[in-house]
Amino acid sequence: MTAIFITFEGIDGSGKSTQSKLLAKTLADQGIDVIITREPGGSVGAEDIRKLLVEGDPDRWSPETEILLFTAARRDHLEKTIRPALANGTVVISDRFADSTRIYQGVARADLRGTVDALHDTIIKVEPDLTFIIDVDPEQALTRGLARNSGEDRFEDFGLQFQMDLRAGFLALAKENTNRCRVIDGNRAIDAIASDVLSIAKAAIA
Amino acid sequence: MTAIFITFEGIDGSGKSTQSKLLAKTLADQGIDVIITREPGGSVGAEDIRKLLVEGDPDRWSPETEILLFTAARRDHLEKTIRPALANGTVVISDRFADSTRIYQGVARADLRGTVDALHDTIIKVEPDLTFIIDVDPEQALTRGLARNSGEDRFEDFGLQFQMDLRAGFLALAKENTNRCRVIDGNRAIDAIASDVLSIAKAAIA
Repeated sequence: MTAIFITFEGIDGSGKSTQSKLLAKTLADQGIDVIITREPGGSVGAEDIRKLLVEGDPDRWSPETEILLFTAARRDHLEKTIRPALANGTVVISDRFADSTRIYQGVARADLRGTVDALHDTIIKVEPDLTFIIDVDPEQALTRGLARNSGEDRFEDFGLQFQMDLRAGFLALAKENTNRCRVIDGNRAIDAIASDVLSIAKAAIA
Repeated sequence: MTAIFITFEGIDGSGKSTQSKLLAKTLADQGIDVIITREPGGSVGAEDIRKLLVEGDPDRWSPETEILLFTAARRDHLEKTIRPALANGTVVISDRFADSTRIYQGVARADLRGTVDALHDTIIKVEPDLTFIIDVDPEQALTRGLARNSGEDRFEDFGLQFQMDLRAGFLALAKENTNRCRVIDGNRAIDAIASDVLSIAKAAIA
């Protein structure tokens, strides 16, 4: 067995949180050491930074400041949670990672993609071993996302066109990173999606 | 009159906070539009980030995460406080700015100076028009700093050798940036220091 770093990515309401939890549970049930984590957050410090990002006025931070805060949270998450778990032989499953910053910030302001990449290359450097991109119809996803009513409205309050642009961004990213990205059709029953995810993950862990 | 950006730098307990306040008060008394601000902090968002930096366990963040948080706070400070004030014709006086990150992080771990500079060049870009480096004997400064008992102990808890290394760092930085840096002998009476600072500042503003 190999302890690998698995991420789930996709637009708001794509079902990636559900799928990441299902995968973690099934692997654990099969006796595999696994932790599930999320971004922004995933460590004590990163969760504190998350609060700054998801609470308050959506225009509280400029895109540049937001990228710095996401990267700070990611660095802490990496140091305190992801790396120690992998070193300990534990599979790590994260609901979002660097790809979300690339796509969300890059779609919101295309000229900032270079800044996102520069920060990643300087401070984070790590990529997941396996990334599931849960691909769904944005109209459906938007309905699900808004229905969730999580109180963290910043990421779910941007409207349909933005979700469509995000979807295109994630699909383009998958094409550029075929070594680690697997696009999963998320417009299906939860169990059917989970079954696909599980067999790909098991093959990578084995 | 020119609205310029003035910073005060120096080791802990050097008296730079006192001097920055005295300069702001004297300029205001002379009818000059001036604001006084500080780092980390200086805007609503940056003050929230400051809390993450100065409260809690000193080992709470790695140096890399800390640099990201300092830079995020600085970007917010720049956008929300410094640039609007300058655009409005107001002189800005800041107690610390980017030089503090360069010297503190660079002294703590020399290999990180490159990261600090890369982040500054990508995200901040701005330098002050005039920087006062208040230069004092570290033993004296350490005593003053510890006596201050501000509750924000992170920056004042590092010991004499660290303060000596910081002093050397600030003096080297002044030599590399003679266009904007003025080293002021801080081992004197407060009024004598304030008088030197005022005449240099007035010449730059005039």
